[in-house]
Amino acid sequence: MAPSSVPAATIARVAVIGATGYGGLQTLRLLHQHPQLQVTYLGGERSSGKRWRDLVPFLPLPGDPVVQSPDPEAIAAAADLAVLSLPNGLAAQLVPPLLERGVKVVDLSADYRYRSLSQWQEVYATEARQVPRSDTDLCQEAVYGLVEWAEERIRGARLVAAPGCFPTASLLGLLPFLQQGLIETRGIVIDAKTGTSGGGRAAKEHLLLAEASEAVAPYGVVGHRHTSEIEQLAGEAAGRAIQLQFTPHLMPMVRGLLATVYGRLRDPGLTADDCTTVLAAAYRHADCVEVLPVGTYPSTKWVRGTNRALISVQVDSRTGQLIVMSAVDNLIKGQAGQGVQCLNLMAGLPAATGLPLLPFYP
Amino acid sequence: MAPSSVPAATIARVAVIGATGYGGLQTLRLLHQHPQLQVTYLGGERSSGKRWRDLVPFLPLPGDPVVQSPDPEAIAAAADLAVLSLPNGLAAQLVPPLLERGVKVVDLSADYRYRSLSQWQEVYATEARQVPRSDTDLCQEAVYGLVEWAEERIRGARLVAAPGCFPTASLLGLLPFLQQGLIETRGIVIDAKTGTSGGGRAAKEHLLLAEASEAVAPYGVVGHRHTSEIEQLAGEAAGRAIQLQFTPHLMPMVRGLLATVYGRLRDPGLTADDCTTVLAAAYRHADCVEVLPVGTYPSTKWVRGTNRALISVQVDSRTGQLIVMSAVDNLIKGQAGQGVQCLNLMAGLPAATGLPLLPFYP
Amino acid sequence: MAPSSVPAATIARVAVIGATGYGGLQTLRLLHQHPQLQVTYLGGERSSGKRWRDLVPFLPLPGDPVVQSPDPEAIAAAADLAVLSLPNGLAAQLVPPLLERGVKVVDLSADYRYRSLSQWQEVYATEARQVPRSDTDLCQEAVYGLVEWAEERIRGARLVAAPGCFPTASLLGLLPFLQQGLIETRGIVIDAKTGTSGGGRAAKEHLLLAEASEAVAPYGVVGHRHTSEIEQLAGEAAGRAIQLQFTPHLMPMVRGLLATVYGRLRDPGLTADDCTTVLAAAYRHADCVEVLPVGTYPSTKWVRGTNRALISVQVDSRTGQLIVMSAVDNLIKGQAGQGVQCLNLMAGLPAATGLPLLPFYP
Amino acid sequence: MAPSSVPAATIARVAVIGATGYGGLQTLRLLHQHPQLQVTYLGGERSSGKRWRDLVPFLPLPGDPVVQSPDPEAIAAAADLAVLSLPNGLAAQLVPPLLERGVKVVDLSADYRYRSLSQWQEVYATEARQVPRSDTDLCQEAVYGLVEWAEERIRGARLVAAPGCFPTASLLGLLPFLQQGLIETRGIVIDAKTGTSGGGRAAKEHLLLAEASEAVAPYGVVGHRHTSEIEQLAGEAAGRAIQLQFTPHLMPMVRGLLATVYGRLRDPGLTADDCTTVLAAAYRHADCVEVLPVGTYPSTKWVRGTNRALISVQVDSRTGQLIVMSAVDNLIKGQAGQGVQCLNLMAGLPAATGLPLLPFYP
Repeated sequence: MAPSSVPAATIARVAVIGATGYGGLQTLRLLHQHPQLQVTYLGGERSSGKRWRDLVPFLPLPGDPVVQSPDPEAIAAAADLAVLSLPNGLAAQLVPPLLERGVKVVDLSADYRYRSLSQWQEVYATEARQVPRSDTDLCQEAVYGLVEWAEERIRGARLVAAPGCFPTASLLGLLPFLQQGLIETRGIVIDAKTGTSGGGRAAKEHLLLAEASEAVAPYGVVGHRHTSEIEQLAGEAAGRAIQLQFTPHLMPMVRGLLATVYGRLRDPGLTADDCTTVLAAAYRHADCVEVLPVGTYPSTKWVRGTNRALISVQVDSRTGQLIVMSAVDNLIKGQAGQGVQCLNLMAGLPAATGLPLLPFYP
Repeated sequence: MAPSSVPAATIARVAVIGATGYGGLQTLRLLHQHPQLQVTYLGGERSSGKRWRDLVPFLPLPGDPVVQSPDPEAIAAAADLAVLSLPNGLAAQLVPPLLERGVKVVDLSADYRYRSLSQWQEVYATEARQVPRSDTDLCQEAVYGLVEWAEERIRGARLVAAPGCFPTASLLGLLPFLQQGLIETRGIVIDAKTGTSGGGRAAKEHLLLAEASEAVAPYGVVGHRHTSEIEQLAGEAAGRAIQLQFTPHLMPMVRGLLATVYGRLRDPGLTADDCTTVLAAAYRHADCVEVLPVGTYPSTKWVRGTNRALISVQVDSRTGQLIVMSAVDNLIKGQAGQGVQCLNLMAGLPAATGLPLLPFYP
Repeated sequence: MAPSSVPAATIARVAVIGATGYGGLQTLRLLHQHPQLQVTYLGGERSSGKRWRDLVPFLPLPGDPVVQSPDPEAIAAAADLAVLSLPNGLAAQLVPPLLERGVKVVDLSADYRYRSLSQWQEVYATEARQVPRSDTDLCQEAVYGLVEWAEERIRGARLVAAPGCFPTASLLGLLPFLQQGLIETRGIVIDAKTGTSGGGRAAKEHLLLAEASEAVAPYGVVGHRHTSEIEQLAGEAAGRAIQLQFTPHLMPMVRGLLATVYGRLRDPGLTADDCTTVLAAAYRHADCVEVLPVGTYPSTKWVRGTNRALISVQVDSRTGQLIVMSAVDNLIKGQAGQGVQCLNLMAGLPAATGLPLLPFYP
Repeated sequence: MAPSSVPAATIARVAVIGATGYGGLQTLRLLHQHPQLQVTYLGGERSSGKRWRDLVPFLPLPGDPVVQSPDPEAIAAAADLAVLSLPNGLAAQLVPPLLERGVKVVDLSADYRYRSLSQWQEVYATEARQVPRSDTDLCQEAVYGLVEWAEERIRGARLVAAPGCFPTASLLGLLPFLQQGLIETRGIVIDAKTGTSGGGRAAKEHLLLAEASEAVAPYGVVGHRHTSEIEQLAGEAAGRAIQLQFTPHLMPMVRGLLATVYGRLRDPGLTADDCTTVLAAAYRHADCVEVLPVGTYPSTKWVRGTNRALISVQVDSRTGQLIVMSAVDNLIKGQAGQGVQCLNLMAGLPAATGLPLLPFYP
């Protein structure tokens, strides 16, 4: 996968565990064209023992590997880094033995997104009942992998929890204003819209095309799990606890996620230009975040198939509201692509290495 | 169109002007199965002189009529009532001569939605420059046709302005709470989502399937024309001027509109059950509005092809936010179906007469 | 459901068994607006004992009935006619006891579509292994419910097998030409396209929106079960056995089915006008089939939500090919609507009674 | 755009003319990640003089260039190669002056796809009336750029006519069998399905999402322009004139194209395995064509965003029919990607250089 012109010494070996779900498929596809990361282990539970080609005929891999069971010993022998794309609760069983064997881990599940294990057990109560956990220290050690806000810490991390798709889009838009104290911490509303691939590849009635096409509907109103994840990070940026309103909506499309964030400006004299400047400053060095000019609003289509977030801001001088609009591809910048950003940093590479930033439009 | 079992005396004659746009097509389709309203005049500007069948092969009409130019004299000779589905600014030229000739009018455009002509001229500045108007009195006389909130006035009206699609969904959810003073009048946020048919049938690049499919994006952020329309009615219900945030988003689907409305409860002790009771009371006698039980959220698919609005409410006791979710078919309850409700009332019939209320699912 | 203006004596009572699948939902929705058929029994296996409203909040039924288990005795006590919308193999277990108790049946499954039980057992081998059957006589008695070609026989039938969706569209286009011997019986190609609702409501990975949207693919190439069903009827019309090529394709849409049928003209001098005349003559008295003028090709959108089939024909004088294009709504004319047509006939009513023929466009 | 690790000497300079249409956008996106081709001239008619960023905010280019008018002198000064993505008829005006100045051209239009100018004038009669042409010799000189069948000739060409999207998918499936004389040359049927992006970016009513979504319909039945293009190449491969049936259908999706090709086997004993072997042999050295195993059928989704064609074959031993299914991304392998393949060859590079072959699924 890595062209021969790149010195072998700088190629890191990556294990992808949970390869046939959407997170795993994106990771494999992204690494396929990566110049310095190479997939050397393909692991899966249900698909263990099967030829890759029989499972995924549309994404041939060199040598058509057989999917392995996720054995820590074997993974450690084959890889320096691992990406886990497993159901919530399962990752926490594989992470400790991997870390013990010196494998650095990027976990795409929610298992290490909370600094407090007990909060995870509260929010993910169903999973917590099935999976006994006592890795309080790993919860504290894990770095929340919102790359543009934790680049240095990710670079030195053993364990990174890749953020959820909704938190990624929401926080990228929200954090610059919270950190600088430009908006009220009360009354924040996040109205989010996601494509159905966010619901995963397992067959569920409400995600059938016949059900989800030509349909827009809210779900998880009040209390969706990503609320607490967003609040944790928002609170850290603001320096005080934050409670906000987060409402996800299911969109009749495959991929793409838009967060429309409403907050009240502390200084009603701030203009959209001012706020755009704030955003642009925050992301000046971020290759994967682009701030749009005032009046240009992001479409999820503009980021489809890319690891880029597009953010735009508008201000209503009548109401004092700030509106931040943030679009990502839920499966790339919202999941696997951000995971690869983390891998890059952990392997000593620039964060955006090998990641697609421009869409094939339309 | 009207079955012979209905007494001839109760059949009202209806002219449909602007028949080949989406508003006109819905009106014709709805009246096609109506027991007591009969289309007796088909008018259009561009399509004048053409056989209906050549224009719309998929919606055959009895006798395959020729489209007429919208001549007031001819309309008055043929019809008791008229539905105008014309571009903004054009309706205002046809309405006065129709009213003079005794034809009652339901106008689907924005021309008579504002009590004040000058406000219309401000909000619809482009159209106002092209079309000189001085019908201040008609603006004041016109009844805003949000049926569930103006049934008696519509029944006696000569001229009804059918509400816009976004105002219909938003106001149905918002008015009960404003009228009873249950939410703060400041800080209201309406995040709305519409199918692309809301943009009309004229060819525009951004509404192409290749552009709008697999895409979600905001537009008209701050200052969309429907903001002032919503604020006018919201203010009347609240008894004081209201300024709110309205942000429309374009959805990758043909039809359907969802308004997610956020407001702050005055009494933080109110529960979702309480608020559902408030809604249910407000719409107890409304055949075309249904309040869903707590925890069941409306999908636009559930109202597709119907004149029904589905409303659900949720409360976040942590933040004190009320979330009202309101779904309509933008072309029926959001436009032509509500127009037919108005026609029904003006013809002395129950509002829901002849209107479809249940969807063909999926 | 039936308005009071209709004499009670002419209202037939209908049981709908398998009510929450797509076939059942369509049937209920169609009967909801039917003037002379009334649903008096709602049966289901998995949903038995549950309130309708909890199962299907978007399609309220009068009195919010509880779903019953499909008990023949209870069905016979409540209904004159029954529509079965059950998985293949299960209908054959319920039909005999219903017929014995005097209930006439329209079966939407494939169980009685073949005159020969052994052919059914061959084509539906999986089901046949699970369900032992010996109702050879019922297979012979059952009338194949392609309404426009069996109206008189359906009128007198106890048991009607509603045709499959693909056979309906294909045969309506093909039979007039076969019956009159206008095309070769060898080399017929049917290239068919269906929306994903044809795959039913049970959750399957390949029918997820994320999988099926933005995707077009063939399936069941050579040997799809509907091939033999089409061949049986085509052979009867032609008076000789026919083997043809049938290839279904899955479309990224909810509902709609188009069959593009290719056949070689026996007389190469026949024009598209001639062939349109043949079609028009065949369907002169068919309310639910419309033949389009030459050069106007049917879109599935034009029949969406209706019980109408639209057929158009073109001829290539260079190659001698006849191309017949036939569009239906797979869930209505292709399934439940045709079922209601059959019910109508069995109840002594005109076939199209109460059925929608015009779409809500777009 | 080309990384510094590539020797400067091997970088070819490319002009893209007609940059804001779908063909131009794909070309730019593909060249953006190309290691050895660099865009050095951006030309357009309507967009001339405008900053790129204002035209296409979602696809930023280095230096945010201004679009130039397509002046041959300026193009020749800046570029070695040119890709023309212009309306039919316009390319033929720009090609001669470019060739005279030593610029090699890949033309994405139909202007040079026919060896005979008079045939072009017949098939593209409308354009021919508007644009007088006398470049008979260029029509004969131009190489038809179906890469897998003309690699050597393209390598030495000054002028390449990139094939149409339908011909690409159809011919890749058909040519191996015609060339080896395995199927009858009479009675071939090509039933093709395309996403709406094939209709281009100009706004047209029938391509609106509201019109084209939830709709499948044939168009151009008998006599579509691509028929003659396919027949020309098919005839050359077969060694005799061929007349076949080609029927395109519009699909409710953005991009992707499937051709289902039906032909009669000369030797009825040939199996699907045999035919797969024939295909595999034909494309043994083709990086951009993959033959699927028997029983695995291509989905357009599997090639979305790639330059790969997926082909599968099935045989019906009963009817003697061969069914070849061929899927491409209409805008990449069906248009701009194949254009880049041609550029690669003309620049002395392997055909697949820099082209994406694997999809981001789903």
